[in-house]
Amino acid sequence: MRIDLEELKSKIKPKLRPIIWRDEDNTLLLLDQRKLPFEEVYVELRDPVSTADAIKQMIIRGAPAIGITAAYGMVLAIAHGNIPTLDEALNELVKARDVLNTARPTAHNLFWATERMLNVARNAVHNGSAKNVKELLNIMKMEAKAIFDEEFDAELMMGIYGLEKINDGDTVLTQCNAGGLATGTGIGTATAPVRVAHALGIKVSVIAPETRPWLQGARLTVYELMVDGIPVTLITDTAVGYVMYRGMVNSVMVGADRILRYGHVYNKIGTFKEAVIAHELGIPFYAIAPSSTFDLKSRVEDVKIEERDPDEVRKIRGVLIAPENVPVFNPVFDVTPPKYVTALITEKGIIYPPFDKNIPKVLSVT
Amino acid sequence: MRIDLEELKSKIKPKLRPIIWRDEDNTLLLLDQRKLPFEEVYVELRDPVSTADAIKQMIIRGAPAIGITAAYGMVLAIAHGNIPTLDEALNELVKARDVLNTARPTAHNLFWATERMLNVARNAVHNGSAKNVKELLNIMKMEAKAIFDEEFDAELMMGIYGLEKINDGDTVLTQCNAGGLATGTGIGTATAPVRVAHALGIKVSVIAPETRPWLQGARLTVYELMVDGIPVTLITDTAVGYVMYRGMVNSVMVGADRILRYGHVYNKIGTFKEAVIAHELGIPFYAIAPSSTFDLKSRVEDVKIEERDPDEVRKIRGVLIAPENVPVFNPVFDVTPPKYVTALITEKGIIYPPFDKNIPKVLSVT
Repeated sequence: MRIDLEELKSKIKPKLRPIIWRDEDNTLLLLDQRKLPFEEVYVELRDPVSTADAIKQMIIRGAPAIGITAAYGMVLAIAHGNIPTLDEALNELVKARDVLNTARPTAHNLFWATERMLNVARNAVHNGSAKNVKELLNIMKMEAKAIFDEEFDAELMMGIYGLEKINDGDTVLTQCNAGGLATGTGIGTATAPVRVAHALGIKVSVIAPETRPWLQGARLTVYELMVDGIPVTLITDTAVGYVMYRGMVNSVMVGADRILRYGHVYNKIGTFKEAVIAHELGIPFYAIAPSSTFDLKSRVEDVKIEERDPDEVRKIRGVLIAPENVPVFNPVFDVTPPKYVTALITEKGIIYPPFDKNIPKVLSVT
Repeated sequence: MRIDLEELKSKIKPKLRPIIWRDEDNTLLLLDQRKLPFEEVYVELRDPVSTADAIKQMIIRGAPAIGITAAYGMVLAIAHGNIPTLDEALNELVKARDVLNTARPTAHNLFWATERMLNVARNAVHNGSAKNVKELLNIMKMEAKAIFDEEFDAELMMGIYGLEKINDGDTVLTQCNAGGLATGTGIGTATAPVRVAHALGIKVSVIAPETRPWLQGARLTVYELMVDGIPVTLITDTAVGYVMYRGMVNSVMVGADRILRYGHVYNKIGTFKEAVIAHELGIPFYAIAPSSTFDLKSRVEDVKIEERDPDEVRKIRGVLIAPENVPVFNPVFDVTPPKYVTALITEKGIIYPPFDKNIPKVLSVT
């Protein structure tokens, strides 16, 4: 099926809206992901400090979603309180950037978004395109929306490229949540091909493993697909192999936190086992991620896998499930070697092995 | 290391005692496994009806443990209440068998144990070795103890054979609970080689995946190994592949619910994925089970995999973790094809491929 971005945009309207900008009263609404799927509550934000706090409190999560939120946090810096001069507006924006940047110190997208917003404001003031604070506010709104739209378009492009890997009637196994909640757009990365296929009337369903310890599969992936009417089945992490063995899975589609030059995919713990079993059973395995995920400098031995609090394993939603003093090993990510990766799907195209040759070619970087 | 059963018995003393017969007041004590690992409570039983009820309520679980419990349930039928004649004692035993047999209608060991106990009683009465109810009671106690001892010895033999597969300093990955709690002896099947090694001063540790949906790994395996001072680390089911990839695992040792002629191993859901990853990474995979587990008649297509209540996945210890109406696929077991099985370890010896030739040879059956 041949489809282009503009054609797709007329057809895909996700109901899922993790981030909403309400223009009539300049308010940012964030779907509180901590409460999902049990309660659908939007938090209303009207200043950068409470926006930073919302990021810190994990009301929103996922690198792209944090970037979009921070961009609107910058808009909020000058949206209220009748700031009289452009100089004072720029002062407010610097303060906003500083407070937002402290919200998640490891979130690259956060710094990138606040810096981009600040630069746009400075340029608008210096080149005279913003003659007063009201005009600056409009420029800032447009820029935040552009950040959202670029992310949205990039995800649709991943979906369009990924569509090639989905046949009518397919079932896709995923892992964790690399969906529209994680990116803030309602589309997502790993879920993009499925969402695009569904929007085009292609029959496709998803199997979502619960993804311990945080249960993002059970809480978030399942929820967001149900919201948009995409058939989804929840399984335990133990059943991941069996569903593939039973022939219930046509492909595996996961997101990625980092992809190295030779095609090593870092993603949520549990991804590696899906990839190995898929490989063994001849099921294609795709990692779907924007070009910003690629790290062509680091080697495998440079990347440290984060290990987290043992209580995340000993407890589930606050309820103890094991002896409280049991030793625990709790790695958050794992690494899937290129051998098990059928292809990488990006907004710039599909990348096949050998990855070290083809990644720079498709992404036009070296 | 060469070691025989009698030598081992002098060295292995598990502290873990899921089933205790208290002779001074003819009382059966069962460790309430539903409350583990949070509370260590023994239920005291003095009659067959409450023993059947304890089995029904899952206070005890695992086929061998149910068999031993049912045998003592038969003892309890004539241990109290001053039964005057041998005929009345036999009547009580028939009634006890009938009530015990209804406790878990699919538990083969249950019927086997009650029938064996009843036959021993009938023979003792008919051949005159029991001249009164007191003598009959003693014969019954000895038989129940024999059932326990035979199970205990068989597990030690699995441990002795399995010892060959453990080197000093090894870490063994397991799955679910095929330990001393499941068999009632304190030894277990999958855990037997580890327990034997530990008793002999060989350094060995265990990695236990939590094993959703029931969390037998987190609740039971971890608990029982900690009780006996065997080093154990709890991981999520998602981390199963990564611990092998990281080189943290020397072998995989699991139990089995059924083993077919060509070596297909049916065991708790999640076993298959461990086996595939172990195979891919060159880590040996052993299923450890008594000869009674082998079913040389059925074919793979004859064995139906049980699927259970979706709420077991949607909830953990009563707490909802997913949308309450999400569709769920909840298979309880999976099947591991012989390709991924390095060897089968039984009380009669180790069985290597080709399994269809070597199973009958080692077990001396056809």
